[in-house]
Amino acid sequence: MKTIAIDAMGGENAPQAIVDAIVKLRKEGSKTNYVLFGDDAKIKASFPKDDDLKNIKIVKTSEVIADEDEPVRAIRSKKDSSMVVAARYVKEAKADALFSMGNTGALLACGIFIIGRIKGVDRPALMPTMPSAKGDQGFNIIDVGANSQSKPEYLVQWAQMASYYAKVIRKVNNPSVALLNNGAESDKGDPLHQEAYNLLKETDLNFIGNIEGNEVMEGKADVVVTDGFTGNAVLKAIEGTASVILHMLKDSLLNNGLMPKIGAALAKPGLNALKKRFDTARHGGAVLLGINAPVVKTHGRSNERPIYYTLKQIDLMLDQDLVGKYREFFKESN
Amino acid sequence: MKTIAIDAMGGENAPQAIVDAIVKLRKEGSKTNYVLFGDDAKIKASFPKDDDLKNIKIVKTSEVIADEDEPVRAIRSKKDSSMVVAARYVKEAKADALFSMGNTGALLACGIFIIGRIKGVDRPALMPTMPSAKGDQGFNIIDVGANSQSKPEYLVQWAQMASYYAKVIRKVNNPSVALLNNGAESDKGDPLHQEAYNLLKETDLNFIGNIEGNEVMEGKADVVVTDGFTGNAVLKAIEGTASVILHMLKDSLLNNGLMPKIGAALAKPGLNALKKRFDTARHGGAVLLGINAPVVKTHGRSNERPIYYTLKQIDLMLDQDLVGKYREFFKESN
Repeated sequence: MKTIAIDAMGGENAPQAIVDAIVKLRKEGSKTNYVLFGDDAKIKASFPKDDDLKNIKIVKTSEVIADEDEPVRAIRSKKDSSMVVAARYVKEAKADALFSMGNTGALLACGIFIIGRIKGVDRPALMPTMPSAKGDQGFNIIDVGANSQSKPEYLVQWAQMASYYAKVIRKVNNPSVALLNNGAESDKGDPLHQEAYNLLKETDLNFIGNIEGNEVMEGKADVVVTDGFTGNAVLKAIEGTASVILHMLKDSLLNNGLMPKIGAALAKPGLNALKKRFDTARHGGAVLLGINAPVVKTHGRSNERPIYYTLKQIDLMLDQDLVGKYREFFKESN
Repeated sequence: MKTIAIDAMGGENAPQAIVDAIVKLRKEGSKTNYVLFGDDAKIKASFPKDDDLKNIKIVKTSEVIADEDEPVRAIRSKKDSSMVVAARYVKEAKADALFSMGNTGALLACGIFIIGRIKGVDRPALMPTMPSAKGDQGFNIIDVGANSQSKPEYLVQWAQMASYYAKVIRKVNNPSVALLNNGAESDKGDPLHQEAYNLLKETDLNFIGNIEGNEVMEGKADVVVTDGFTGNAVLKAIEGTASVILHMLKDSLLNNGLMPKIGAALAKPGLNALKKRFDTARHGGAVLLGINAPVVKTHGRSNERPIYYTLKQIDLMLDQDLVGKYREFFKESN
């Protein structure tokens, strides 16, 4: 039996959106157990009145980690927070995975300091699945900010974990792996990236070499490996650019007289198709890889839909025993 | 009298697009002298038959640096290339500025090794002007890739040069300067960015603190300062994302039946307004700051329009004696 520990207080739409996603999953036949941590009255009230709460457990906690809290300090001082208590449940093997929409830094700290690293993994890293120009399949990018300082060896471990994830969770055949760098040639970049290139070349990964920032969204690689500082900046730049352009597009269509307005209405099926191709929800949340259990983060503004897909993603990671496979791999390679 | 040395062989549309831009500028009354380097017959043939070639000088060169050439090797071995000979003209004070659409790395090498650094500037850096959600004004971002390794002190010098550029060339009143980092708080980032933050705080720049990748395109700062590795990745990620989305938009409007097609036609004024707001041409090219003369690069696929604006931008830099002002500043501060 799988059990997912859920911080039911993090995120703008918590706990209602989380409960809605769970209700939908159970209707579809999910047998997973969900333990929700937080304000028990509020969580209970979010379920439909006639719900039998089958497979649901609610654990009352008295504190909440806010987005503006300093992560490490917060998980030390707010010991009865929904996120920390949920993480402790996973540590004590009362749950198999941790999900939260709250403070990203605090969730990373919960993963690293409470649940703990997989033996042999130097540094856990954060990995979302992004949409690309190639459409449905998307790509993984790791690390997008769990580490502000990286070493070449970390990048190799991240590439190994991400490649395996792409294969068994996203069902990509022989995933291609590329190093984000400032040029195509093998000698490009600073010493960190030059050395990472050389190490990646020696692995049995399907390493296709360097990739530049403009090629990432084209879907040139199934897995993009990068140091956490650059990865963080690039991921945010992609999100910011997409948001600014789509906002400007809407604005330009609505504020240039009647014709563009009518045009936009007629073009709706096309615009919806664009929206669908750029849909990040279907891929689930960002995973903190290298931790002794799946730890997954979804955007704080998420509504039911991305949460639904994230809970399915966690189910799949548990079914595939992803963390167990990582444990074996890093045991053998040490 | 101002003289601009132009590598007339670099770029897909050279030399015709360059000649068209010059013809237009002269029609508008430009008194600037243009020296064009390259295939003299081809350059001459690009001018209208009845052109008196006033203010034009053509210098015949026999080689061209290709985009795929290794930069430093290329400028050493192709001594009679249009780019190298043009750079030497500037070095020898026969011209005041250098413009090229060719190999970016080779142009940086020409700037650094042939024309030379301003005394007191540790490392020259590349700086484009980007459009932002705020509209017309845009923002500067420095360094976007002249340096793959950076030190905190470099970032401070870049911020100083970029801030002055924003003030006198872009006419921004008291330009705000932000540091690209992985969080808002002052202690964020790796040691490089933490130290850069502390140094920037001590300057008399209008330093507004850290900025994250998603805020760059929102236009939160007039000048974004970043290490060359991250800046390169972020700039390319922005360009790649914009290109992928606009391409997908076109595709979605044209391939979803008749209605979106008609809609797109009606929406055209709105889509054109979007295009105009996202117009990078008006801001001119990317400038290599810290060199003893303006050295400016425009995209290799540029047509007449961005070249026209870039030549005007160079005129303005010469009129304002930008490089002279930098020289004074770094003389005093050393």
